[in-house]
Amino acid sequence: MQARLDEVKAQVRAALDEALSALPKGELADAMAYATVGGKRIRALLVLESARLHGVSDTAALPVAAAVEALHAYSLVHDDLPAMDDDDLRRGMPTCHIQWSEATAILAGDALQALAFALLTRDEIGGPEARLRLIGAFAGAVGAAGMVWGQAQDIAAETALRPLDLEAITRLQGAKTGALIRFAATAGPLIAGGETEALDHYARKLGLAFQIADDILDVTGDQDLTGKRVGKDDAAGKATFVSLLGLDGARAEAARLAAEAEAALASYGEAAENLRDLARFVIERDT
Amino acid sequence: MQARLDEVKAQVRAALDEALSALPKGELADAMAYATVGGKRIRALLVLESARLHGVSDTAALPVAAAVEALHAYSLVHDDLPAMDDDDLRRGMPTCHIQWSEATAILAGDALQALAFALLTRDEIGGPEARLRLIGAFAGAVGAAGMVWGQAQDIAAETALRPLDLEAITRLQGAKTGALIRFAATAGPLIAGGETEALDHYARKLGLAFQIADDILDVTGDQDLTGKRVGKDDAAGKATFVSLLGLDGARAEAARLAAEAEAALASYGEAAENLRDLARFVIERDT
Repeated sequence: MQARLDEVKAQVRAALDEALSALPKGELADAMAYATVGGKRIRALLVLESARLHGVSDTAALPVAAAVEALHAYSLVHDDLPAMDDDDLRRGMPTCHIQWSEATAILAGDALQALAFALLTRDEIGGPEARLRLIGAFAGAVGAAGMVWGQAQDIAAETALRPLDLEAITRLQGAKTGALIRFAATAGPLIAGGETEALDHYARKLGLAFQIADDILDVTGDQDLTGKRVGKDDAAGKATFVSLLGLDGARAEAARLAAEAEAALASYGEAAENLRDLARFVIERDT
Repeated sequence: MQARLDEVKAQVRAALDEALSALPKGELADAMAYATVGGKRIRALLVLESARLHGVSDTAALPVAAAVEALHAYSLVHDDLPAMDDDDLRRGMPTCHIQWSEATAILAGDALQALAFALLTRDEIGGPEARLRLIGAFAGAVGAAGMVWGQAQDIAAETALRPLDLEAITRLQGAKTGALIRFAATAGPLIAGGETEALDHYARKLGLAFQIADDILDVTGDQDLTGKRVGKDDAAGKATFVSLLGLDGARAEAARLAAEAEAALASYGEAAENLRDLARFVIERDT
């Protein structure tokens, strides 16, 4: 899996660099580039694999993979702001507002969102209908009924009178991290005009397994490997899958979800092997 | 002009309310709705008038007008943040981060940007090609080569060693306020697949005239009418069109630009009368 992720990393880096190089030089563009450095590129991999499963070329899928990673980078930059999660370390580097300034971090995030939408208009992706399907789904995954809604719930939970229960956390994370993962995993059929159901089902399970693994890493992880502060949720008294299920319970639930994700790919047969590997990878990773 | 603006105000309010009502209820959606209250709706008027000049119906143009106003609202919410211009009054009401919280204001801005793109995918607007032209132009107007770039320059100017000169301010404002105004004014031909040149020329002049009038109002304006703090630029020692040209010089320049804007509409004849009225309105307004 790591070899495939490294391949995707190089492809996405080139696509992002090309898009960023077209912008006016200066601190804003530098901060945007800084924010897109590193990361596991799991979302990009989802886009490229989902594309292959539906006969869509890497060339067509790459702007979409870059858009998803640009969007993900914006969400991290804004989530790390002092008014939000107030983090100083991300991907092993100072967070964007520490490296530059709070104003530049806000603006870099804003511009990365716009860049993501710009990437989805690219000719290489396919016909106008295909691109519009993508853009519509993307706007929904990002906005006030998707990722941003999830982040707002997460912030609200910090000052809530009682911690969230399992149902509320599942709903929250289904939006905060799940919505973009579902978009990425269904990009292939969205471009090709195919059926999104199986990949959407896979992505729902994968997204939750991924988040549970993140919660486990916040407890058991090594800051040098994860590249971000650990133990933060517990210190903040936040409910997580670990606080609600226990460490063993969380591990069992992640494994169950990963298996369900794999099973959702049955109709794709051998061709979906990389996506099955990914389901195992997300729960076994130490970064 | 005010009667036409009031008509547009009601249409845009209805379109925004419809789009906002589809979002999950809660503080995030409330803050987004709050941020879209009020405003002169000059950008929406530009969209609707430019549409009429190119045979595009109000029904087709309205989602675009709503998108432009949602985007404008997001930019005001983020510009007003403590890390940016740190404003507490906007459109006569507490700014979004004062009324809610800084985190909610950041997220409401983020979600308003996504909502703007979602609105541009609406079927009513026209065929897929038309909507893609709009979305591509919009992403360019908003992002790191457009509005956000202008705002970054504006923030950087506050801590620069010497104030900006006329050329630098003109370039900065051409991006910060000009890019979205140019998008709005060319929305009609972008939808219809027509020639954008005359309206783009009009919008360049109008945008600058508008900004000069804003700088004049910051010096001569009444806070009760403008609904925002006045005298801020001078207190911050910021270069403005007034500090560089003097009050009389700025008034003369605004009048000259408004006349050039009107002249750019010659080929449209009588049909462009509302846009000519608007050019006079933006330099004569006291709000």
